[in-house]
Amino acid sequence: MGDAGRTVVDVPRIDKGLDNVYVKETSICFVDGVRGRLLYRGYDIRDLADHSSFEETAFLLLWGRLPNREELARIRADLGAARAVPPAVLASLRRMPKDAAPMDVLRTAVSLLGMHDGDRGDASPEANRRRAVRLLGSVATIVAAYHRIRSGARLVKPDPARAHADDFLRMVTGTRPGASQTRVMDVALILYADHSMNASTFAATVAASTLSDLTSTIVAAIAALKGPLHGGAIEAAFEALRFIGRPEAAEAYVLDVLGRHGKVFGFGHRVYKTYDPRALIFQRIAKELSEAAGDPDLYRVADVVQETVVRELRAKHIFPNVDFYSGLVFHYLGLPPDLATAIFAMSRTAGWAAHVIEYWEDNRILRPLDHYVGPTDALYVPLEDRS
Amino acid sequence: MGDAGRTVVDVPRIDKGLDNVYVKETSICFVDGVRGRLLYRGYDIRDLADHSSFEETAFLLLWGRLPNREELARIRADLGAARAVPPAVLASLRRMPKDAAPMDVLRTAVSLLGMHDGDRGDASPEANRRRAVRLLGSVATIVAAYHRIRSGARLVKPDPARAHADDFLRMVTGTRPGASQTRVMDVALILYADHSMNASTFAATVAASTLSDLTSTIVAAIAALKGPLHGGAIEAAFEALRFIGRPEAAEAYVLDVLGRHGKVFGFGHRVYKTYDPRALIFQRIAKELSEAAGDPDLYRVADVVQETVVRELRAKHIFPNVDFYSGLVFHYLGLPPDLATAIFAMSRTAGWAAHVIEYWEDNRILRPLDHYVGPTDALYVPLEDRS
Repeated sequence: MGDAGRTVVDVPRIDKGLDNVYVKETSICFVDGVRGRLLYRGYDIRDLADHSSFEETAFLLLWGRLPNREELARIRADLGAARAVPPAVLASLRRMPKDAAPMDVLRTAVSLLGMHDGDRGDASPEANRRRAVRLLGSVATIVAAYHRIRSGARLVKPDPARAHADDFLRMVTGTRPGASQTRVMDVALILYADHSMNASTFAATVAASTLSDLTSTIVAAIAALKGPLHGGAIEAAFEALRFIGRPEAAEAYVLDVLGRHGKVFGFGHRVYKTYDPRALIFQRIAKELSEAAGDPDLYRVADVVQETVVRELRAKHIFPNVDFYSGLVFHYLGLPPDLATAIFAMSRTAGWAAHVIEYWEDNRILRPLDHYVGPTDALYVPLEDRS
Repeated sequence: MGDAGRTVVDVPRIDKGLDNVYVKETSICFVDGVRGRLLYRGYDIRDLADHSSFEETAFLLLWGRLPNREELARIRADLGAARAVPPAVLASLRRMPKDAAPMDVLRTAVSLLGMHDGDRGDASPEANRRRAVRLLGSVATIVAAYHRIRSGARLVKPDPARAHADDFLRMVTGTRPGASQTRVMDVALILYADHSMNASTFAATVAASTLSDLTSTIVAAIAALKGPLHGGAIEAAFEALRFIGRPEAAEAYVLDVLGRHGKVFGFGHRVYKTYDPRALIFQRIAKELSEAAGDPDLYRVADVVQETVVRELRAKHIFPNVDFYSGLVFHYLGLPPDLATAIFAMSRTAGWAAHVIEYWEDNRILRPLDHYVGPTDALYVPLEDRS
């Protein structure tokens, strides 16, 4: 067929994956992939993991600074109140298939929440920050409640007086967590709360750019996070550790996968060219928990996998990323492996919302181009004349 | 604060809105913005509007060629079967707030559909095309059923023997549409079925790029389509026509809005620098319907608005886009104005799925960069020392 209708530039550059394309300026999160540092609003993630709480970190991401005493009390109270999700949402969870993927459940329940949002009309930054806090609270309860429902266990009512990490563990497991478990959960939520313009944050931003509402943008992010090249990697990485089972089998497993040019989940990152600082923190925690539990085998499997991958792929600068040890940490906390990506979402909702609110400060619809390479003058043939 | 930690290129170019960035090659849709042509798989939209049906156009977008007799019969049957949505989804619609935004309903119900998909595991292109056809069928019923429910009207069961456009009108209005109304609905669905890499298709593609599932990508697209800078523009444009009310008031309205640097919805497009061919078709249909209805006023309002905007903004190449006359067409078909964006989604699901399936043929995670401009060495201050 002819090219008569072709008026685009003949062979434009395709920015596949948008690897080196900058889509906005930001003051939320800095990933220093060379030095292996991660900053939220300028604060080193290691300091936040040591000293902060998820409530404080969420405030930091959303409001751009650490809260004072009154502000911290308010976000704690607001999160606690929001953990009491609308009865219609809880009822919908009870009716969902018991074997649904937790990410499908979360995507649907958060979407439903959008219809029950108290102040739909107000799209000011402050209203959206408050809305983000409500979403953060609700998401924790949705994840926990669905797990209780599918397990045939009684729902555990949220306790607004508790810290978010504490109450989440309580709502999932049905027992009161110890202080060290709560602290580990809190750190996990801090570590997952943001990571600059990753694919789920980008999906949220694209949805935001049409001036859609905040809940819609979070739903879009959850839809993107589900994939195994993103949040789904936690489960894939953990399942591999369980499949390997014994530390002695780990090296051979890795060599076999790499020999077949297969993928070892939980390794490599578009930005980090050294150890992801979050991976190092999760590794330390996983080690401690495995020893405390008197069940060090899975942790040792992970370490051998890690050493083997890093040794074999050092030339390619492949290191464990945040998702490699986190599944193990969730496991030692007694959390079911298939909740891992939903827990990621529970935390990352803070970062998603912060990025969307920032993008709206100087919004422009995200409408890239695609380069047409098909026919330009196909002739419509009536049905009776088609072969 | 110092810049010690800054290792990114100092001032990279920000591709705001990704206006001139190509994200993939495609053979689905070509928007010739200079000549005012739109092609699906090489076929001119005007030929498709004259000769094709939505079933055939959906097949064309998904399979890349016009169907033969058996293939057309199969997609008709599959669409018809899929209009019988799972009872759990219908039940969930009954429980949603009666004043919810139809796009919130659609986003939630499609997300719920994902849990009821028959063959979750198979992610082959052919399985996804079949899945897309099921989604297309279900979406029509969801839009119609929610409208019946919120209106307190009895649900109209889908009739798998009918054409998709016919059955949709029947399910919404509760009466059997005439042949000309059905044809107009069919043409509207054809015209909205794809439009290259717009924001909703891009949101779907970003979600797809993590290897998430097809339903998740459609949910992400719906989340993006909702915004007034995208599908929400149909309702905004139509509401303006209703607000103006009389043809004599139209010119003054436009001059007033433009004088205040306001936005007249339904005009302008990132790609078209002349008349959008879909707008011309919708204009002709709106004119015919307004005359047939003996109710020409709203159409005349639209024409005066259109002439005034084009005259005033000719230097900027601003012309009516697809969303300007379509709300009017839906109005004359007896469809409620606030369903317009959901009807857009009902049609565009074909294009969204086609683009996602095409992207998966050569997938790469879409992870752009953002340029960090915040502090890089903020010092963590304990709560008791904060002001």
